[in-house]
Amino acid sequence: MSNSNDYVPPKVWSHDVESGGAWAKINRPTAGATHSKELPKGENPLQLYSLATPNGVKVTILLEELLELGVAEAEYDAYLINIGEGDQFASGFVAINPNSKIPALVDQSVGPAISIFESGAILMYLAEKFNAFLPKDIATKTQCLSWLFWQMGSAPYLGGGFGHFYSYAPVKIQYCIDRFSMETKRQMDVLDQHLQNNTYFCGDEYTVADMAIWPWYGSLVLGNLYDAGTFLDVASYKNLVRWAKEIEKRPAVQRGRMVNRTWGELSEQLHERHSAEDFNNKTQDKI
Amino acid sequence: MSNSNDYVPPKVWSHDVESGGAWAKINRPTAGATHSKELPKGENPLQLYSLATPNGVKVTILLEELLELGVAEAEYDAYLINIGEGDQFASGFVAINPNSKIPALVDQSVGPAISIFESGAILMYLAEKFNAFLPKDIATKTQCLSWLFWQMGSAPYLGGGFGHFYSYAPVKIQYCIDRFSMETKRQMDVLDQHLQNNTYFCGDEYTVADMAIWPWYGSLVLGNLYDAGTFLDVASYKNLVRWAKEIEKRPAVQRGRMVNRTWGELSEQLHERHSAEDFNNKTQDKI
Repeated sequence: MSNSNDYVPPKVWSHDVESGGAWAKINRPTAGATHSKELPKGENPLQLYSLATPNGVKVTILLEELLELGVAEAEYDAYLINIGEGDQFASGFVAINPNSKIPALVDQSVGPAISIFESGAILMYLAEKFNAFLPKDIATKTQCLSWLFWQMGSAPYLGGGFGHFYSYAPVKIQYCIDRFSMETKRQMDVLDQHLQNNTYFCGDEYTVADMAIWPWYGSLVLGNLYDAGTFLDVASYKNLVRWAKEIEKRPAVQRGRMVNRTWGELSEQLHERHSAEDFNNKTQDKI
Repeated sequence: MSNSNDYVPPKVWSHDVESGGAWAKINRPTAGATHSKELPKGENPLQLYSLATPNGVKVTILLEELLELGVAEAEYDAYLINIGEGDQFASGFVAINPNSKIPALVDQSVGPAISIFESGAILMYLAEKFNAFLPKDIATKTQCLSWLFWQMGSAPYLGGGFGHFYSYAPVKIQYCIDRFSMETKRQMDVLDQHLQNNTYFCGDEYTVADMAIWPWYGSLVLGNLYDAGTFLDVASYKNLVRWAKEIEKRPAVQRGRMVNRTWGELSEQLHERHSAEDFNNKTQDKI
């Protein structure tokens, strides 16, 4: 591997299995299933296949918020997809998400069952299905749509950019850390300025836009992502910190972030979730 | 700037104005307006502020497709936002898109006017407003949503990742080119495998999902993005190439890609668009 200024790419790229850093084993240049294995299936209307990364947590927060509202049809089974073990390349998972990324959802309350992939699409699907956490007024709903899509298009610079080069890459490359730090700070400033005059992203209403943005940018300013709080001076984004702390207090958020979590304190992990009772009867072993 | 293996990031990141490559002048770590300037405004129901990058072209393709269908309410004025000149940091633009990225749309056919940012949100807004290019059947509509969000979350790895490090960065860094080439090829393979059994992304229906994916991945396999056709062996993704060529032939696509375009052949540029006539009466000067 060369980092020198005179590197000349070959005419045609080919896969060098040596490179890739901490996630090298699960990254590959091809798509599709690597092995045959069906997905487990429970009795609840919704079947979630996920992991408590920020993209996974978006969906478990919305599901717990819906249950908190009393929407019984939002009951769900959450199964663990261990991406470090390659579960996302099993034939059953690829059948519901050809992109092999968590989260993926199956709604078996309708016939035939509907499967959905991409966290943003899952949020939209559930918000529309249950007519909740999506503004009714068209102007505010449109604002919600803008911020929801903003999150989807922006977080790759935080996760696949900053997080990768600051935390995971096998070599620290200054150009990359500078590039993605600058963009991450710009994004935090966009959010911070907006929250100066808004309680939530769509004014006074707590919506799926907040649920999409919180697990990424909320975690970041609360110091829970990439251990980068000091490096990015997250405390200076005061409106964003205020918003992040407010959302963190919500009981549904506290529960949502535990589901399919396999790291951190054992008391904060619930590897699988099949009913509300599971939060009280946790007997998790280390994975 | 150091690319060596022993680079140690500082405790707190600070902005080094020297780094950044071809787009260094327009990247900054803060948000908000840099100067006071109002946006121009025309008489049509929809006001678009954009540039013919892939994200801009998504929207002009949809607008031209709607007009092709005979939807008169989709008539639009398209104004040029020259991102190289910093137009996206003008106060008028920031007021409709605090994220300072093209495209942004104002619907002045409703009162009060509604503004929308993020290309994916604009596609959803227009498809729902005009009840077109979005499947009616809930299962197919959900599939459309999944692929639309897939595009939004995936293209940053193609554009901000591969495109940046392969084409724009001031230094060729092998680790980065390898990382993002691998991901771009995986993404093309995801699309290619899906199109093996589907005419379009949602089966037989041409939808906003195709319009979102085509300007990025269609352009890439047609050899029109980053001059990377050979490097990424795009010809091997045969289903994706078949789909890209089919969509390229559509008259609305031919028109859509010309709007707000300021590079390439002068005959392919229409800097501003205010009516269908403009495509026939083009007198563009070089910008």
